[in-house]
Amino acid sequence: MKYLFEASVGGGIPIIHPMHQCLAANEITEIVGILNGTTNYILTQMIKNGESFDNALGIAQQLGYAEANPAADIEGIDACRKIAILADLAFGRQISPDKIYTEGITNVDSEDVKYAESQNCVIKLIGYCKKDGDMVFARVSPMFVPKESALSGVDDVFNAILVRGNAIGETMFYGRGAGKLPTASAVVSDMIDIARDNCNGIMWTDEGDDFIMDINDSKVKWFVRASQSKVKDAERLFGAIDLTFIKDTEFGFTTPKLTEGELSRKIEEMGGMIKFVRVLE
Amino acid sequence: MKYLFEASVGGGIPIIHPMHQCLAANEITEIVGILNGTTNYILTQMIKNGESFDNALGIAQQLGYAEANPAADIEGIDACRKIAILADLAFGRQISPDKIYTEGITNVDSEDVKYAESQNCVIKLIGYCKKDGDMVFARVSPMFVPKESALSGVDDVFNAILVRGNAIGETMFYGRGAGKLPTASAVVSDMIDIARDNCNGIMWTDEGDDFIMDINDSKVKWFVRASQSKVKDAERLFGAIDLTFIKDTEFGFTTPKLTEGELSRKIEEMGGMIKFVRVLE
Repeated sequence: MKYLFEASVGGGIPIIHPMHQCLAANEITEIVGILNGTTNYILTQMIKNGESFDNALGIAQQLGYAEANPAADIEGIDACRKIAILADLAFGRQISPDKIYTEGITNVDSEDVKYAESQNCVIKLIGYCKKDGDMVFARVSPMFVPKESALSGVDDVFNAILVRGNAIGETMFYGRGAGKLPTASAVVSDMIDIARDNCNGIMWTDEGDDFIMDINDSKVKWFVRASQSKVKDAERLFGAIDLTFIKDTEFGFTTPKLTEGELSRKIEEMGGMIKFVRVLE
Repeated sequence: MKYLFEASVGGGIPIIHPMHQCLAANEITEIVGILNGTTNYILTQMIKNGESFDNALGIAQQLGYAEANPAADIEGIDACRKIAILADLAFGRQISPDKIYTEGITNVDSEDVKYAESQNCVIKLIGYCKKDGDMVFARVSPMFVPKESALSGVDDVFNAILVRGNAIGETMFYGRGAGKLPTASAVVSDMIDIARDNCNGIMWTDEGDDFIMDINDSKVKWFVRASQSKVKDAERLFGAIDLTFIKDTEFGFTTPKLTEGELSRKIEEMGGMIKFVRVLE
């Protein structure tokens, strides 16, 4: 018995087959994806039209992009399942969604959008996984995506999956992540493959989880928002940082690359922390 | 005997397989591609760093992106062969490269780059093919690409191929179009497919060419540059047009959609034509 599941990630975008088949000569090292069209639509409304999160969600619901109960999308659960499938496929070992740190977009506000712009970035919900030695790391969270990245221009309900491999370098797959016809396109292509007897089983092992890196060990740059009074403490703790001001009561800055653990310790010492968002490199 | 040829278009980017296999449930209606990394690098230098064409070509040659004799790239010949392969595959009938109108980037100048910017576009060398009823049309030429298009952000030596299908809508494949490792990635994936006996022959018919639309019948918007003295004539001939001025001696404007034949007749009547570039929609 063989299962094909092209439609499970990225809707109509060919991604499962290309990863399994066309990138077979590569060791895949990293995947960065905009994997959920509903949240991408909401964030696009906040970025392009200055909508609040609540208004943007309302518009998405009116248009049928978001469910009446939108939790699975806006809490990042759907994106988490998708990055889990891609990570399984890329690294050959099963990573259960409940092992993946998952943060949705419900706390993203208009200030985050403006701070992102000040850093020449846009804020996106990013599913991320990476091979690091023998370990694998996966995460779903909002991230500041630099405008030079091909992912930054992926708007509205579109999805995109950027795959890095040791031979191919960087490649990206882009298209409609949902909808009746795109999904049907993926399902029917699987059926045609089966009819042509043109499919290999896609396999991975589901033994153990000691290869999954703890989120506290993963390193990333951070954009931190803190109370106005903490400028001196921030400079002392984080070194040479550029300060950004978009309102009277607070300031923002990008940290060097730090583990989640290191960040937590510094933030605690600084005090006055309002919020932090990871920054994609 | 079966031939696989994933590396023939887009270097390491999986495109031949995904089109043939993953989009098998679609009728493909249109392909728009940045298919040549050398010319894309040269245009990126002209756009981002304000280099002249000659300087940009020199830099590309120094870096080994352009050959000592760069004709096959800068005259659009390489892109033409690639769009021919994609069109064959998409439409199931062979379109010989010598039937495809091909214009390279040797006439693109700094003013074109500025005019493109004034229209919120970037100038790119675009391989294009489209199904129009029973006919098929293909072309290679510089085009103004609107910044909202996912193709506009494809810079340097990267390639991207946007495929439109009746079920999938719009999907795009992006990555390194050349280089030793990306190309090897594509070749080795074909070899793995052959070893797995996991390949269908990719076939198309090579009978006749009466399905190929004449370039004079193809419709497109145009950006026209003409001598300053011809403003009144342009307005009379092209209707409500927005005029753009970036230097004293000339002006530019975008036409409505016109066939090549219609444009030629109007241009001849107007006189004072300096140059025209097609505009991607």
